[in-house]
Parts: sequence; structure tokens; C-alpha cells
Amino acid sequence: MRFSPIIEELIQALKVLPGVGQKSAQRMAFQLLERHREGGERLAVALQTAIEQVGHCSVCRTLTEHSTCGLCADTLRRDSGLLCIVESPADVVAIEQTSQYQGCYFVLMGHLSPLDGIGPDEIGLDILAQRLEQESITEIILATNPTVEGEATAHFIADLARRHQIRTSRIAHGVPVGGELEYVDQATLGHAFSGRKWIENN
Amino acid sequence: MRFSPIIEELIQALKVLPGVGQKSAQRMAFQLLERHREGGERLAVALQTAIEQVGHCSVCRTLTEHSTCGLCADTLRRDSGLLCIVESPADVVAIEQTSQYQGCYFVLMGHLSPLDGIGPDEIGLDILAQRLEQESITEIILATNPTVEGEATAHFIADLARRHQIRTSRIAHGVPVGGELEYVDQATLGHAFSGRKWIENN
Ligand SMILES: [Zn+2]
Ligand SMILES: [Zn+2]
Repeated sequence: MRFSPIIEELIQALKVLPGVGQKSAQRMAFQLLERHREGGERLAVALQTAIEQVGHCSVCRTLTEHSTCGLCADTLRRDSGLLCIVESPADVVAIEQTSQYQGCYFVLMGHLSPLDGIGPDEIGLDILAQRLEQESITEIILATNPTVEGEATAHFIADLARRHQIRTSRIAHGVPVGGELEYVDQATLGHAFSGRKWIENN
Repeated sequence: MRFSPIIEELIQALKVLPGVGQKSAQRMAFQLLERHREGGERLAVALQTAIEQVGHCSVCRTLTEHSTCGLCADTLRRDSGLLCIVESPADVVAIEQTSQYQGCYFVLMGHLSPLDGIGPDEIGLDILAQRLEQESITEIILATNPTVEGEATAHFIADLARRHQIRTSRIAHGVPVGGELEYVDQATLGHAFSGRKWIENN
């Protein structure tokens, strides 16, 4: 015995969401139908609208409903000559919140993953190569995730940048601010040592 | 800096789902838009259809797109005189999967929770009282959850049944089949002892 067909279909459809299994999908379906129909309605409309209207920025590849995203449309940023490479639109938002960077971004929407069939073209490196050719970019900042795939992707892009004679940097790994040494993993602590900085003797 | 308005709205709308916070909502939105648009489309349609068509069974209150659900439409079940009271449609499915019960159900769609303004009418006990009056129900089986609220709700319904002179039982608490004693919580183990059964000496 299953739920009635329409409820069953809603539960199955909810399972397309990452991290949602049968039990969570059931709980979501019942809660929406029992107590939160306006919320469900809003979600249906938001999904439909986003699927119809959201595409990629033609310049940086981030998800946006405009042909060029707000950051790429900012000429001050374009003139900076700085290009920061990240894996996801969420990374752009995180970096923007630091107010430490005023350049442009290039959003890979993933990372190299040959086993999953994700090669350079799938993460837009053909578009990036074209930009390196045509624009006057003076520095590339590699801000892919500090994971095996993120590092491999960073290396690949560093090679690409070298061929275009563009200076490239990688964001620093190290002990998180406010973190306690004993809870930091070995690899991070290793990076924190090898990347140590001299303290100036004034 | 935030995401573009349509993406931002999708993220906020996903947060209506139980257990979904900002980070999960972002991950869901990006995954749907980047890799799984058909899944998002399917979810939007499933939500819309369910919200438009799913209501409550007029007999047992479970969620269904029919005016009377399949189980309530089954005359063999109606004739059994058995009525099992559960909190959620998922409980009906779980009990049906045991094949141990062939009676009818009454689905509270929640439990008594006076502090949240959920009194007897909110969980359909007015409808239940009417059924106890009009139908020839011979046994009520209380299968609400073994939580404080579930027990309080069971007590309340047992009183209602007593007033209608209907025999009432509560599903047994005890050690789960296949469980190990040392991992069973105290309250359950207490129930397992007080509810112990004599082994027949043949
Ligand atoms: Zn852009
Ligand atoms: Zn029913």
C-alpha cells in the first residue's frame, strides 16, 4: 500500500532535491499539504519562474536572470584587471561579504572531474581562455575549494594562465580565524606552517 | 550582496520546507538550476497539482485527492468494526505494510498540543465523536506515537471512547524486534517488563 497517486508523485518529486530521502520527502509533503499550502504554492511559482528565466551570465557564467550579471556589468570591476575563479555562485556571495576584493569573477559551476565526464569545456574553460586572450587581465586569483578536485582544477587553470603570461595566485590555506589549533586538521595545519609569514621587525 | 532576485526568491521559497536552512536551500537551488531542471519542473508541477487536488478523506481525515480514501471505501474494512487512530498518513502506510491489521483508520493529522492552539477539534475529534455515535465500531486501537503528546492524545481519546462504551486498546510498547537490550532506552525497557506476557506451559 502506498499513498494516493498525487501524494506519491509529490513525494517522489521532492526526492530530486539533494539530501532528501523517502522519509524527509514524506515529512515535507505532509507538512506542506497540511499546514503550509501558501508556502508550497510560493515554492511551485519560484521554481517555475527560476527555471524559465535563470541562465548563465555571458561573461562570468554565474547563474542569473540577466544576460550579464550585476558584477560583470560594473565597469570599475572590469577595469581592475583582476579575475577571481570560483566553483559556485555561493562562493561569489561569500567573497563579496568580506569586502576584501573588488575585481571580477569567473564561476566554473563545478570543478574538473574526469570520471564524471566533467572536463575543461564543461566548466567553461574554453570561455575563460577566450577572455584571457581578449581582455587585459593582470591577475588571476584561484579560489576553488581546498579539496582534491578544487586543487586539480586550480592547477589546470594556473597552466592556462601561464600560457597567456598572466600572473596567478592561490588564496591562502591556514588556520581559520577564531579556530583552535587542536581542532584544525593536519593538512590545514601543514599549510599554515609552510605558508607562514615573517613578522616585520620595525 | 545577494543573489539575483529570482534566485534569491527560489532560495527563500525552498526554506519553507521543514529542515531546510539557508545553506541547504542554496545548494538545492544551484543543483536544480545547474544540473536538474527537469527535476525542478517536475517538482513545481507536482506541488501545484497536489495543492490543488489533495484534501482530506471525509471519513478518516487522511490526505487524499479523493473525497473518500481507498481504505475507507473498502466495505470489508468498514464492516470489521475496528478503528485504528494514528497521527499521520505515514503511520497508516507503516501499519499497512505489517499486514497485521484489516480494519479502518482515523488520522488525526497531528496530536493535542494546547500550547500551540491544537485542541480536540483541530485533530478532528469532533468528527471522530460523530462516527462513534453513528457507526457500529466495536474496538478502537490507539496507535498514536509513544511520545508525551501522543500518550496525552491517546488518553483523551480513550475517555471519549469510554463515554461511547467502546472497548479501547493501546498498541504495545516494548523492545523492538531485533534490537539489543543494552541499546534500548529505560522507558521502553520498563514498558517491556510491565507488559510482559506469560509463556503457556503446554
Ligand atoms: Zn557575470
Ligand atoms: Zn479515509
